[in-house]
Amino acid sequence: MEIRDVVDSDWAAVWGFMQQILAAGDTYCWPTDTGEEAARAWWMDKPGGRVLVAVDDGAVVGTAEIHPNQPAAGSHVANAGFMVSPTEAGRGVGRALANRVLEVAVEDGYAAMQFNAVVETNAPAIRLWESLGFTILGTVPEAFRHPDRGLVGLHIMHRFLR
Amino acid sequence: MEIRDVVDSDWAAVWGFMQQILAAGDTYCWPTDTGEEAARAWWMDKPGGRVLVAVDDGAVVGTAEIHPNQPAAGSHVANAGFMVSPTEAGRGVGRALANRVLEVAVEDGYAAMQFNAVVETNAPAIRLWESLGFTILGTVPEAFRHPDRGLVGLHIMHRFLR
Repeated sequence: MEIRDVVDSDWAAVWGFMQQILAAGDTYCWPTDTGEEAARAWWMDKPGGRVLVAVDDGAVVGTAEIHPNQPAAGSHVANAGFMVSPTEAGRGVGRALANRVLEVAVEDGYAAMQFNAVVETNAPAIRLWESLGFTILGTVPEAFRHPDRGLVGLHIMHRFLR
Repeated sequence: MEIRDVVDSDWAAVWGFMQQILAAGDTYCWPTDTGEEAARAWWMDKPGGRVLVAVDDGAVVGTAEIHPNQPAAGSHVANAGFMVSPTEAGRGVGRALANRVLEVAVEDGYAAMQFNAVVETNAPAIRLWESLGFTILGTVPEAFRHPDRGLVGLHIMHRFLR
């Protein structure tokens, strides 16, 4: 599996699985019926952002984006997002993306990484981040309307990069 | 003091003190040299946002904005920002704005309010929020480059509105 910076021609594949992930509505706050243009702007055009893709046997199977969590006085803390094609779940794509994103964050000079909204029922993601040294700084109670479980919390997770 | 929704003609006064607050660089992450156009878009044009001003004796002396902290599945939690003219500090403008924002949040159907980045050295703000029932859910360590104090933490603060 190769992890590399995104190119324009990757978008169609990214959108293919992103649409499924957003439609499921259990991991991201974005509307389940988010349109392609809005999704592309959200993922690809964040200020100061950088987008990676995971490519397996020529197919784009996952993506990650990294961007400053705050502007200016807070821009040394990165935020990142991850999506793996549901058909590729459990094959280590998320972990490979996460490892590369942590490297990229160091290369790009970030001092720490923060996630603002990890759905507390998303056990695989929480397990992954904790195994990579992230801790839960706090949990915003009842902050996410889960399609099956009702109101659940959103974790704020963090690790230093040095 | 009257607290009311903003009108276009209020902007010049808002920008007058906003520019000073951003230039000081000790309470918001935005660049100290943020331009007027970017500042206006940031404060006035957030998706789903609503902006209030505090008017005292005909002069706009403070402003607040309230918007969903997350889209869609997280849109029932409000986020808000506050700015009071430095020349009016200590006169209760912030508290008056805060009280009205909490009322507006209830009227507009939000279930809770969350702040993502309260600078931990901003004692008056923290005192105000705690007196209004907010708690610190967690603190992102060293997440803010303070112009005098170096790296300081950013509090995530929260209260339910029901």
